[in-house]
Amino acid sequence: MTDTTQREQRFTRGKDILDAVDGTAGAKVIDALVDVSPELAHQIVAWGFGEIYSRPGLEPRDRQLVTLGMLTALGGAEPQLEVHINASLNVGLTPQQIVEALLHSAVYCGFPRALNATLTAKKVFAERGLLPVH
Amino acid sequence: MTDTTQREQRFTRGKDILDAVDGTAGAKVIDALVDVSPELAHQIVAWGFGEIYSRPGLEPRDRQLVTLGMLTALGGAEPQLEVHINASLNVGLTPQQIVEALLHSAVYCGFPRALNATLTAKKVFAERGLLPVH
Amino acid sequence: MTDTTQREQRFTRGKDILDAVDGTAGAKVIDALVDVSPELAHQIVAWGFGEIYSRPGLEPRDRQLVTLGMLTALGGAEPQLEVHINASLNVGLTPQQIVEALLHSAVYCGFPRALNATLTAKKVFAERGLLPVH
Amino acid sequence: MTDTTQREQRFTRGKDILDAVDGTAGAKVIDALVDVSPELAHQIVAWGFGEIYSRPGLEPRDRQLVTLGMLTALGGAEPQLEVHINASLNVGLTPQQIVEALLHSAVYCGFPRALNATLTAKKVFAERGLLPVH
Amino acid sequence: MTDTTQREQRFTRGKDILDAVDGTAGAKVIDALVDVSPELAHQIVAWGFGEIYSRPGLEPRDRQLVTLGMLTALGGAEPQLEVHINASLNVGLTPQQIVEALLHSAVYCGFPRALNATLTAKKVFAERGLLPVH
Amino acid sequence: MTDTTQREQRFTRGKDILDAVDGTAGAKVIDALVDVSPELAHQIVAWGFGEIYSRPGLEPRDRQLVTLGMLTALGGAEPQLEVHINASLNVGLTPQQIVEALLHSAVYCGFPRALNATLTAKKVFAERGLLPVH
Repeated sequence: MTDTTQREQRFTRGKDILDAVDGTAGAKVIDALVDVSPELAHQIVAWGFGEIYSRPGLEPRDRQLVTLGMLTALGGAEPQLEVHINASLNVGLTPQQIVEALLHSAVYCGFPRALNATLTAKKVFAERGLLPVH
Repeated sequence: MTDTTQREQRFTRGKDILDAVDGTAGAKVIDALVDVSPELAHQIVAWGFGEIYSRPGLEPRDRQLVTLGMLTALGGAEPQLEVHINASLNVGLTPQQIVEALLHSAVYCGFPRALNATLTAKKVFAERGLLPVH
Repeated sequence: MTDTTQREQRFTRGKDILDAVDGTAGAKVIDALVDVSPELAHQIVAWGFGEIYSRPGLEPRDRQLVTLGMLTALGGAEPQLEVHINASLNVGLTPQQIVEALLHSAVYCGFPRALNATLTAKKVFAERGLLPVH
Repeated sequence: MTDTTQREQRFTRGKDILDAVDGTAGAKVIDALVDVSPELAHQIVAWGFGEIYSRPGLEPRDRQLVTLGMLTALGGAEPQLEVHINASLNVGLTPQQIVEALLHSAVYCGFPRALNATLTAKKVFAERGLLPVH
Repeated sequence: MTDTTQREQRFTRGKDILDAVDGTAGAKVIDALVDVSPELAHQIVAWGFGEIYSRPGLEPRDRQLVTLGMLTALGGAEPQLEVHINASLNVGLTPQQIVEALLHSAVYCGFPRALNATLTAKKVFAERGLLPVH
Repeated sequence: MTDTTQREQRFTRGKDILDAVDGTAGAKVIDALVDVSPELAHQIVAWGFGEIYSRPGLEPRDRQLVTLGMLTALGGAEPQLEVHINASLNVGLTPQQIVEALLHSAVYCGFPRALNATLTAKKVFAERGLLPVH
């Protein structure tokens, strides 16, 4: 099997997982990179999803909980948080659980990070007709 | 006294301080949360303001100086910085002192953080008719 | 009921949860604060645990997954990460799941944060006789 | 020589370097500060460029490589990253090298920081007619 | 006046302020740099203290309040925080005010940053015989 | 070719580059992970070095300049900075250039980050008999 074939296979495996987790939001990020850094697009898909997300040791919903925590703490990652709040809903977390996780973040990251993340969640929930959250 | 009454009392105590410090800007943040995370709104008010801001050990203007330093250093907290530059003016800091504090931040956080914070201050000062700062 | 009694009740409620989640590691942090900032100790317990951790909307193990993500992303929070890797084990996450969550963090925070967190986990696992992780 | 003259000389020296490195983008930042914090503008120019950038120990292109790394890692510094991706092109880095440096950042800062930086580069390259990057 | 003389004068002016604010702790940092980066030592003194700290627009105690906020929020800056908690005491802030400022930081940066900063304050207070803080 | 063979090949390719860039320091990090997260070790080597470092678009010395900037800006990454200051020397950067890059970081990240990074460089230079830096 050639290197090129291996590379394509790894991309394909990652793309299937990306689509399952992130839906169309993931594909949009990949498309936005095509004329500036196709290699970054490739690595997000082939490595991030194909090699890490694909591992069996942690349930998809658990991966999203960890990811919500990281993206909230990093700050300035609202576009990625938007993708992953969608992903969290896609893999079975409820709006209530997401909102609770972001409230929990206030304890460790402070209110500004919790606020920015919660207002990003509000935007996603509005687009999906999930407001108000009770 | 019931738990619910206690909870309401704590919110009311915090709300009075929030309004005194942040004016209408604080209330807007609270309103934005009502349909997505009313608990986060409650905790910002009842805990952040009712329990921490209400403590006598540090003057309101001193609390805003510390807060300006933190929000500048965190980065990505421009919406909160906007609220707290307004708050700083409300509790008696002058535009000159605010600008000087943000210049000082260049020493510890570097120019990008100082720049983003100063341009946020410019926006607030413009809205309040406080430009130019001499 | 007096304010002092309410305050003590809130502390007691939080302390029970802190002990259940963090074991002796949490109590050590609280003890270290007693002569410098007893109020910070009080707020960690009464608010962090009594008001946020006590909420039913997210399972204890899910709270630790979010917390592992946040502490890894923050950086410089290794002492807290040590407490919460212990806490994660206490509430039912396996060493394998913790290690997988920290591997996952490489995708969002990069290798240095993932490395520091994983070596902190190694220290905790060694103390608890849980090495090697298979 | 008076203090004022020294101050003006230091500004002039820095301004020449700022213009050479950042082109009109640097001047715009300085202009935006004139009515809010002329001292911050002065210090960016006189100190940042006049004293640090002017030093001979590191080639201008090498300074931009370090700067790209820092601004990507900081997060929330997209406006400054935009200026410095332009600067990187001005001092001889190619779009391919810039894109490669930002891909490299994924290893140390994770994909969200790499993504935000790469999409900022895309914006700059589009304005300068440099897309697609091959 | 030659460039070298100007440079020495700027250093001397900064050194006087550094000594007044940071006492021997500042001098130790400068000494540690002498064989690796004398220029960084020079710039901290001549620029940080000679040009920024020396400005009249903000009282020394106010500069330290902003600085405490920034160093707490940055994380990983415990050595600098140690210097500046000493500096805060030198310019008239009380241990109670410092502890209160660090408690306040929990609202904006979360408990891990507040904890690390408070335990750094504890170390400084212990060295100066200021424990317990009442 | 089996998946296992591919995986081993990718590791081997990365290990050669890791050894060339990081020398024994890289190998020590990998060894430290073997009983806690062999997969993290694998991914650092096979992906970080085998897939990203191995790319031809940026010279090894340029990759280290970007990396120095990122690790300085991240904060709390001193162990990794130590490895990469060694790596920077291994691929041809001089102590003077490294020190200059870290001085440059003061402009973008502030003095605390520049100080921590420079004192880490001092430690590495001392171990390699490269002090004082002139």
